[in-house]
Amino acid sequence: MPNIYLYQMKKLLFFLLVPMLALAQSGDEKMLRQIHDQALTQSKGYGWLDHLCNQIGPRLSGSEGAEKAVQYTKSEMDKLGFDKVFLQEVMVPKWVRGKKESAFILNGKSKISVPICALGGSVGTPKDGLTAQVIEVKNLSDLPALADQIKGKIVFFNHPMIPENINAFHSYGEAGRVRWMGPREAAKYGAVGTICRSLNLRLDDFPHTGSMGYGDLPVSQHIPAAAISTNGAELLSKMLRENPNLKFRFSQDCQSMGEVLSYNVIGEVKGSEHPDRIMVVGGHLDSWDLADGAHDDGAGVVQSMEVFRIFKSMGYRPKNTLRVVLFMNEENGGRGGKQYNDDAQAKGENHIFALESDCGGFSPRGFSFQASDANFEKMSAYRDLLSPYLIHVFDRGHSGSDIEPLQSANIVKAGLMPDTQRYFDYHHAATDTFDAINKRELELGAAAMASLVYLIDQHSIAP
Amino acid sequence: MPNIYLYQMKKLLFFLLVPMLALAQSGDEKMLRQIHDQALTQSKGYGWLDHLCNQIGPRLSGSEGAEKAVQYTKSEMDKLGFDKVFLQEVMVPKWVRGKKESAFILNGKSKISVPICALGGSVGTPKDGLTAQVIEVKNLSDLPALADQIKGKIVFFNHPMIPENINAFHSYGEAGRVRWMGPREAAKYGAVGTICRSLNLRLDDFPHTGSMGYGDLPVSQHIPAAAISTNGAELLSKMLRENPNLKFRFSQDCQSMGEVLSYNVIGEVKGSEHPDRIMVVGGHLDSWDLADGAHDDGAGVVQSMEVFRIFKSMGYRPKNTLRVVLFMNEENGGRGGKQYNDDAQAKGENHIFALESDCGGFSPRGFSFQASDANFEKMSAYRDLLSPYLIHVFDRGHSGSDIEPLQSANIVKAGLMPDTQRYFDYHHAATDTFDAINKRELELGAAAMASLVYLIDQHSIAP
Repeated sequence: MPNIYLYQMKKLLFFLLVPMLALAQSGDEKMLRQIHDQALTQSKGYGWLDHLCNQIGPRLSGSEGAEKAVQYTKSEMDKLGFDKVFLQEVMVPKWVRGKKESAFILNGKSKISVPICALGGSVGTPKDGLTAQVIEVKNLSDLPALADQIKGKIVFFNHPMIPENINAFHSYGEAGRVRWMGPREAAKYGAVGTICRSLNLRLDDFPHTGSMGYGDLPVSQHIPAAAISTNGAELLSKMLRENPNLKFRFSQDCQSMGEVLSYNVIGEVKGSEHPDRIMVVGGHLDSWDLADGAHDDGAGVVQSMEVFRIFKSMGYRPKNTLRVVLFMNEENGGRGGKQYNDDAQAKGENHIFALESDCGGFSPRGFSFQASDANFEKMSAYRDLLSPYLIHVFDRGHSGSDIEPLQSANIVKAGLMPDTQRYFDYHHAATDTFDAINKRELELGAAAMASLVYLIDQHSIAP
Repeated sequence: MPNIYLYQMKKLLFFLLVPMLALAQSGDEKMLRQIHDQALTQSKGYGWLDHLCNQIGPRLSGSEGAEKAVQYTKSEMDKLGFDKVFLQEVMVPKWVRGKKESAFILNGKSKISVPICALGGSVGTPKDGLTAQVIEVKNLSDLPALADQIKGKIVFFNHPMIPENINAFHSYGEAGRVRWMGPREAAKYGAVGTICRSLNLRLDDFPHTGSMGYGDLPVSQHIPAAAISTNGAELLSKMLRENPNLKFRFSQDCQSMGEVLSYNVIGEVKGSEHPDRIMVVGGHLDSWDLADGAHDDGAGVVQSMEVFRIFKSMGYRPKNTLRVVLFMNEENGGRGGKQYNDDAQAKGENHIFALESDCGGFSPRGFSFQASDANFEKMSAYRDLLSPYLIHVFDRGHSGSDIEPLQSANIVKAGLMPDTQRYFDYHHAATDTFDAINKRELELGAAAMASLVYLIDQHSIAP
C-alpha cells in the first residue's frame, strides 16, 4: 500500500535529519563530545553499581555492607590509574534496625497491619510493642495548642510533601524537618512515640526511613519514632476521623551502638600545572539499610569514579589535582564530609572546586551552585557549551551534603541536578534498587559531571 | 549528638530555601503557575491512562481494544464540557498477530529458543515454520555485495541503535529504515525471511514490533519478517561467527485482513474571539498489540484530554477554537492524521496551531517545532516564561506523525519533547505498560502542553 509506505518513510526520514555536529568545533566542544561518547559507549559505572547493589547491598554506616563497599571501591579505583588511592579514617555512628518492625491499627475488634519502619537513630519499643491512642497533627507548630492532649499518646505527623513544586526537592525541606524534629518535640509534651508520614510524593505501601534526632533531650525522654507508608498514613488518618479513640501498636527493635571506625575512599591524580589546586568529585558510599541505595547514592559513587575513568581513557590529565572522594556516613551523621574538610584544613589545602552527585541517577538537567556572584557568572558562561547535552539548567542553592563543610577561599561547590520527579519514589525505601536505574541516564550524569570538571579545569576559577 | 543535629538541620534548611515566586508576576506567569498547580494536584490523566491500559489494554487499529478506546475516551470527553464531542470516520488497515510466535537457533544438535515477534504488516510463515540458513548484515547497503549468497536464506539485519546520540530518537531513523525496508530489499535477492534486531538501546529479552512494508513487491515475494530481542540478536550473531552454517527456524501466524471502519475522537470548544482559527492538541489512540501502549501513546491521549480539563477547571475559555483530537492508526498507516487533514481541507478550515504528544509520558523538557523562521522566532520568545518549569528546550524538527499531514497557510506545528532516555526500553514492546509511567512526569507533560497552547492562544500567531 503506497499510501502507508509514503507515510512511514516520511515518519522515519524525520529522525534521519539528525543535527550532526558537522560545524567547526572548538577544542572544548570536541572534548565535551568525546566525554559523552566515552560515557555512553565505554562506561563501567553500570557494572560497578550492579556489584554495589546486588553483590554488596545495603551499606549503612558501621555495617558489613559499608565495610565491603569501602574495600570494593578501593580495589576498583586501584585499577583505574590514579596516582594514589587511599582510605581516610572516619569514626561513624552505628545504628542497627534489628528485627523487622510491625504495626497495627487497633479499632474495636479489628486489627489492621500497616507498613512502618523505624527512623534512623530512633530507640526501640518495649519488646511487646508500644500501644497507645493516636493524636494526628500536620506540623510541629500544631503541638503547643494540643499540649494537654498529647501526654501518653502516639503523635502521628501527617505532613504530605506538597505536589506543586516542579523541583521535588523543594518539597523535602518542610516535611523533612517534621521527620527530624517531630520525635523530640512530641516527647517534650509527654508523647510516648511518633509515627511520621513517609516522605514520598506518591501513594504506595513503602515506608521511607531517614534520620531523626533527639537533640538535647535526656535519654529518659527518647521515644520510639517510626515512618508509615503514605497509603498507611491515609488509612490511619481516615480511620481516626471515624474513631478518634482507636489505638496504634508498633514494635521496633532498633538501637544505637556507639561509634566505629570506617573510611572515606579517595583517589587522587596530581595536577599537571597546579598540583596545589584541588578539585573534588564525589558521592557517598553509605546508604540506608532498607535497600541497595542504588539512587542514594550508589549512582553518585560510580558516576564520580566514572569521571576519572573517562578522563583516563581520553588521555586527559587534569591541570589541577583531581580527587575522587567516596564519602562515608552522609545518611546519619555526615562524618565523612566533616572529616575530609578537617584534614584539608589541617594541611592548609587549597580546594578550588567540589562537585557532588547525590540526587539520584536520573537524566541530568544541570547543576546547583554554591559560589560567589563572580564565580557563578563565570560558570554561567559554560551554559552554551553544555546545552547540546541538555545539562544547562544552572541554579544557585544546595550543592551536596558531603561537600557542604568544605571551606576554601575561592571555592565553587556544585551539585549535579538530575530530573527530580522520580527521586522520592525510591528515597530511603525498599524500592531503591538496581532495577530502578536506567543505564543511559546514569551514564549521562557521569558525562555531565566530567564535562563541568573539564571546563573548570581548563578555565580555572582560582589562582 | 549535637554534631549530627547541626549537620542534619543544615542539610534540611537548604531545601527550605525554595525560590518561591514571591515577585510580582505577569498575567502570563500567573496562568502558567495555575496550569501547573492544576496539573499536579487535580489531574485526571493518570486515572484515564489506568483505564486505557488496565481495563482496555492493547489498541491496535481494527481490534476490539481500539474500538473500546474510542468509546471510552468519547464518553470521558463528553463529561468534560466541550461544546461538542464527535467521532470522525476513518478506514484503517486491520492486521492480526494470531498465535504467539516462536523461534529457535538450530546449531547441530542444540536448539535454542530466542524471543521474536512478527513485524506489523508481515505475512505469516508456513504452519510448520520456516527453517533456513542465516546471513547476517548490518545495513540495507550490505545486500548488493552479498546478492548471490542470499537466495533461500533468512537475512538477519543486526543494526544496533547507536548509543552516542543524546536525543535517543536521533538513533531511531537509520535503524528504523532497516526495519521498514529490510524485508522487501532482502526479498528482491531471494531471501525467504528476515529477522531484524529490535530497536532498543539496551540489552534485554523483549522483541519490539513496528511497521514494515513490502512496497511494490508482488505478493508472491512477500516474505515473513520478525524482530528479535537485542539479547537474542547478540546471541545469534555470536553463534553465527562460530558456525556460519547454523539454521534458524521461526513460526508466525499473522495476517492482514483488509480495511475496517474506525474513528478519530474529537472534542471541540469554539474560540471566544476567533472561532475560525483552530488549534489542535492530540495524541494517538491506537497502540501496538504487545502491551497496553502506556507511553505509546496512551500518555499523549490523556495529556491532550488534560489540556482541555485544565483550561475548563481554571475557567479559561480559549480565544481561538480548540480541538482535542485522538487520532486512530498512527502505528500502521497514519490514516487518522490523513483523514483529519482531508476533512479540514474540504471544509476550508484555518488551522493556526497543532501540538502532538507522541514521545512518551516522561518528564517534559521542551518542544520540537515545525514552523516558519518568523513563527519559530515568535515561539522562542516564550522560552523565558517556560524556563521555571524546565520546559524551555526548543528545537526545530519533527512535530508529530498525526499532525504531519495537516496543512494551513501559517500553521505552527509542535511536538512535546520529553526526556528520551527510557523511551526505547518500552517502545512497541511488551514492557510498555502502566507501571512504566510516573504520575508526576505524565502530569508535567500535560502542563507543558497546556502552557504552550495558552501562550499561543493569547499571543496568537496568525490572522
